Amino acid sequence: MAAPSEDTLRRALAERQAAADAQAEAVRALKAAGGASKADVDAAVEALKALKVEAGAAARRLQQALGAGAGGAAREELRQAVVNTLERKLFYIPSFKIYRGVAGLYDYGPPGCRVKANVLSFWRQHFVLEENMLEVDCPCVTPEVVLKASGHVEKFTDLMVKDEKTGTCYRADHLLKDFCKEKLEKDLALPQEKADEFKRVLAILDDLSAEELGAKIKEYSIVAPDTKNPLSDPYPFNLMFQTSIGPTGLSVGYMRPETAQGIFVNFKDLYYYNGQKLPFAAAQIGQAFRNEISPRQGLLRVREFTLAEIEHFVDPEDKSHPKFVDVADLEFLMFPRELQLSGESAKLMKLGEAVSKGTVNNETLGYFIGRVYLFLTCLGIDKGRLRFRQHLPNEMAHYAADCWDAEIESSYGWIECVGIADRSAYDLKAHTEKSGVPLVAHEKFSKPRKVEKLVIVPSKKDLGLAFKGNQKMVLEALEAMSEKEAFEMKAELETKGETNFKVCTLGKDVVITKKMVSISMEKKLEHQRVFTPSVIEPSFGIGRIIYCLFEHSFYTRPSKSEEEQLNVFRFPPLVAPIKCTVFPLVKNQEFDAAAKVIAKALTTAGISHIIDTTAISIGRRYARTDEIGVPFAVTVDSATNVTIRERDSKEQIRVDINEVASVVKQLTEGQSTWADVSAKYPAHVGPQGDQE
Amino acid sequence: MAAPSEDTLRRALAERQAAADAQAEAVRALKAAGGASKADVDAAVEALKALKVEAGAAARRLQQALGAGAGGAAREELRQAVVNTLERKLFYIPSFKIYRGVAGLYDYGPPGCRVKANVLSFWRQHFVLEENMLEVDCPCVTPEVVLKASGHVEKFTDLMVKDEKTGTCYRADHLLKDFCKEKLEKDLALPQEKADEFKRVLAILDDLSAEELGAKIKEYSIVAPDTKNPLSDPYPFNLMFQTSIGPTGLSVGYMRPETAQGIFVNFKDLYYYNGQKLPFAAAQIGQAFRNEISPRQGLLRVREFTLAEIEHFVDPEDKSHPKFVDVADLEFLMFPRELQLSGESAKLMKLGEAVSKGTVNNETLGYFIGRVYLFLTCLGIDKGRLRFRQHLPNEMAHYAADCWDAEIESSYGWIECVGIADRSAYDLKAHTEKSGVPLVAHEKFSKPRKVEKLVIVPSKKDLGLAFKGNQKMVLEALEAMSEKEAFEMKAELETKGETNFKVCTLGKDVVITKKMVSISMEKKLEHQRVFTPSVIEPSFGIGRIIYCLFEHSFYTRPSKSEEEQLNVFRFPPLVAPIKCTVFPLVKNQEFDAAAKVIAKALTTAGISHIIDTTAISIGRRYARTDEIGVPFAVTVDSATNVTIRERDSKEQIRVDINEVASVVKQLTEGQSTWADVSAKYPAHVGPQGDQE
Repeated sequence: MAAPSEDTLRRALAERQAAADAQAEAVRALKAAGGASKADVDAAVEALKALKVEAGAAARRLQQALGAGAGGAAREELRQAVVNTLERKLFYIPSFKIYRGVAGLYDYGPPGCRVKANVLSFWRQHFVLEENMLEVDCPCVTPEVVLKASGHVEKFTDLMVKDEKTGTCYRADHLLKDFCKEKLEKDLALPQEKADEFKRVLAILDDLSAEELGAKIKEYSIVAPDTKNPLSDPYPFNLMFQTSIGPTGLSVGYMRPETAQGIFVNFKDLYYYNGQKLPFAAAQIGQAFRNEISPRQGLLRVREFTLAEIEHFVDPEDKSHPKFVDVADLEFLMFPRELQLSGESAKLMKLGEAVSKGTVNNETLGYFIGRVYLFLTCLGIDKGRLRFRQHLPNEMAHYAADCWDAEIESSYGWIECVGIADRSAYDLKAHTEKSGVPLVAHEKFSKPRKVEKLVIVPSKKDLGLAFKGNQKMVLEALEAMSEKEAFEMKAELETKGETNFKVCTLGKDVVITKKMVSISMEKKLEHQRVFTPSVIEPSFGIGRIIYCLFEHSFYTRPSKSEEEQLNVFRFPPLVAPIKCTVFPLVKNQEFDAAAKVIAKALTTAGISHIIDTTAISIGRRYARTDEIGVPFAVTVDSATNVTIRERDSKEQIRVDINEVASVVKQLTEGQSTWADVSAKYPAHVGPQGDQE
Repeated sequence: MAAPSEDTLRRALAERQAAADAQAEAVRALKAAGGASKADVDAAVEALKALKVEAGAAARRLQQALGAGAGGAAREELRQAVVNTLERKLFYIPSFKIYRGVAGLYDYGPPGCRVKANVLSFWRQHFVLEENMLEVDCPCVTPEVVLKASGHVEKFTDLMVKDEKTGTCYRADHLLKDFCKEKLEKDLALPQEKADEFKRVLAILDDLSAEELGAKIKEYSIVAPDTKNPLSDPYPFNLMFQTSIGPTGLSVGYMRPETAQGIFVNFKDLYYYNGQKLPFAAAQIGQAFRNEISPRQGLLRVREFTLAEIEHFVDPEDKSHPKFVDVADLEFLMFPRELQLSGESAKLMKLGEAVSKGTVNNETLGYFIGRVYLFLTCLGIDKGRLRFRQHLPNEMAHYAADCWDAEIESSYGWIECVGIADRSAYDLKAHTEKSGVPLVAHEKFSKPRKVEKLVIVPSKKDLGLAFKGNQKMVLEALEAMSEKEAFEMKAELETKGETNFKVCTLGKDVVITKKMVSISMEKKLEHQRVFTPSVIEPSFGIGRIIYCLFEHSFYTRPSKSEEEQLNVFRFPPLVAPIKCTVFPLVKNQEFDAAAKVIAKALTTAGISHIIDTTAISIGRRYARTDEIGVPFAVTVDSATNVTIRERDSKEQIRVDINEVASVVKQLTEGQSTWADVSAKYPAHVGPQGDQE
């Protein structure tokens, strides 16, 4: 049976609360009137108590339903446990902590930094090397002209409101969102129609204009959260960090908000480098910057972050992909537009079907969705908490052909971690226009093709005489006509000698006569097709992926004594910051020497490791190593022959000291599984296991 | 025999020029006087011609000597050939080229980006993994308070002059340097004392104050190079890119000028992470920024660059290093202070001796010098063009104990690529003071130690009565006395009852009486020593190292037909952007299929490669691959059995198709040399070699 809906619970609560209120009134009336028997009054009071209990239970049921849906106490608790472990073990450090930090800036400490390096190195292997992509590395400092062309100077903004007295700034949509969520979660007596309204506002939040947002803030009397002061009207704040290039102060620059533009401006060189062949992909890993108004969501929304972006350039008339067959059989959670609009959940779908049915726009887009799925799950992202959500029409840029986000479920809800968009020819066209350098591709025909081409020749002289200052606008409008429009005009001109013609840029119709324009189809020989490639862009927020990975990898288990819960990160070896620890069981010269021999062999094999010689119990040392997700621990309890322990099963095998490095290398590089080596080497069940 | 010195040549030229001038005067006089015989005049003219030839020869000899010393035509030519190849093959691209670029910003294109990734990955292996360093990753955006503490806000400046009419900015020292160099190189008639003066100016250029620089510019009447307009006085320009953090515009931030500060501010956490043990090292790779006034020297002086920095924290009382023995026998070019001051050249020295003789301040500094030497030479830097130069006393920061630069000789001269400095406790003390968080280490004594400690107890009451408003300054000065000063005061007070005492902060002496202060030595038990660690900092300019590597790796050799010179980069496999190319000899299905099998095996083995199926001669394809430094080429001339060619020797061996990937892997990862595999597999001398 399905759980009762929030609406049902809200209605039940309202009914029970009303009944209790009525009974309370009745009790008051009974007492006020006097004369009622004690038994009657007691009975009425008992009835009131029962109704209150019922109303309380209804309130709890509603609260539970709301909590489970929107990030309840359990989620909050998990997050606290993960974040505490991450900060205590220096996976992350709030940047410039001794100076009380800067909101939205975090350092990766030693284990975090290694995880990040591992993720990036796997990204290079999985995408750049596998697809022979052209990787580039462009500066963060970017001159204004580039970001004007891309639209960032004009449009990379959030709406901001200011506390009218203190000047403190807030994101306008955050305040409205918080208000609506708080009402929905905490105000249990909210009437149904109000609840519906708040939900509608939350759904359209991203689409609200400055005026609409301002109106809502006024309507709900939302004030500054800290001071309760009134707020200014919302106005756009550009999120780029601005600076000045060179000493004159005249040359405006920005810290790039994405790495993609560095690739687009290099398209021409890269296309020639690739032998003027399409498709090809360029890639870039690097820092990007976003001067958030008031950073929230801890590690998920930061002011500086690492992006890894791919721009796959393709002929817009052929978006097939030769390696699509390799991923067509993958099946995972997809959340297409239709399911979202009909209020359903994401569904398991086969990628091949999603493309053949047209749910995913084309094979190349589908190929990258599949590769992203493989990338994330290899890192250790839980398949059950990963979905590919298609953008709704209103979310997508007007030029985009299709767009899917890889969303990962975390304690903050579903988080967009990778965007995979077919951006059509938009970016290359924008830079072509602004720079004057044609960023185009050529398809040479094996033999010239005869084509019929529409030729529109306006007569400048006659247009000039007729329209004077408006001549240019009319001329451009004539030249921009489609084939259909042109032939309709030609027919009218031939029959009537003149026709009405709407010039958008003038906002009115003008009269065009026969001598003002000649329209014809001409046959031409063409040797090549010149076109602007489409670009398919998978864009990875590396920090977000890593944070979600931390949440998905974290678990706790009781210590041997069951007196405490121990933290574990179940990182696959690929991701683990350190692949192996080496523990001399007790402090003695022989064991220390053996540990050094093993460490040297591990270094030679390129396996990151640490030796832990602290004089605490081996169980404590295992726990310490589990807490940073080290998959294998070598315990030196003999000078010739040692144990290797696997983190999650806690199983141990005995291995000759000279084989340790090669066994660990096989395990960490994926040539052997733990099952393989368990079958090959004797199991160890010794005293040191007991101490854990 | 040593080449004649510049002075000798300059003197010889002056003498010959004077003789020629005198003879010219004589000829004129002879003609003007009339009456001289034609034979006499002819003889005088012949003599003049001979003297002119001699003067011309002397001028050429001087010019040659100057050219060889300061970057002559050959260097310029080499640089042009290297840079042309680098830009044509997209190792580098001037950033935002379609918008006509920004001075001092460059992209790494596909092969350059791979070289950089290889260099960084080797750096991690060679330093971070080998020494178990704590790597961190901090943001580029840095709040002002951090860079005030480090001194960058005040001191990270260059002196700038402005064209007084156009406002164009120049680095003042560059203009003075250019002027002096031009005079020395081009003005062959320069009197000796003037030449000496210009040389002295060049030698002390870095030490000149704004006033001194301004005075020299005035004295030499230096004007703006492009317009010849007068110049402003020099004034300091801060080289940090400034920005604003958050929406209020009130919080000043900068793009970090180095990565080191991110490590220093984290010292406390890192020290605890390391179990409160010294020594330990932290490391960081990342972007750094420097808003150059007018960038020059192409790829060597840029506005954004990648740094790799190590901060090795050590007890100032024990700078020994347990692994110093591993590098003590290395012998390479060292250029200590004494050799520089006596005008000698760098000398081959054994590192062990340099440390034991005290030329290098301590073992840890020496250890890192040795490791840097190994790092650079493994990458392919020419030992003969690498030297370690000690900073002169005036170059070194006042707090530094010793400082050595790894300098690499390029077409621009000797370039500082790695700085290895013992910065003592300066940085940690600066941040301790500014943040109030003690960045210190503790040495716990195994048993408490008795120590005698100076105790100075001023009497606030008596000081207050005597000095009123100045009480605090007197009190602080008393507390800050050294042991020696304190006991001198104690003796005076006991004999005379009072003494004169200089208070710097008041700028005068005051009279201190016996009751104002008590001075004594007290015995105390101490359980630990608390101290600020010293830091030894190797700091790598990754872009500079890579550029020098490109120059050192580049050579040309004639094509088979000897009609043209072909470019080759002799990168070691470690550095090569692509390890292997695969060429089907001719276009046919069988060879293409075999090539794909090989490519797949290479991908699985993690070997970067490209398949080149263009229908040009195999010789041309080899040349193309040599030009980006690919060390091995696989030519598919059979479906079962192919050839592998080594780039520099052009030798080929025949290998079974199933073994290709493992042979190439062994070669590129250093398990086998070319000699090893040549001995194992049959040599190939076939038709395809001939086409080259």
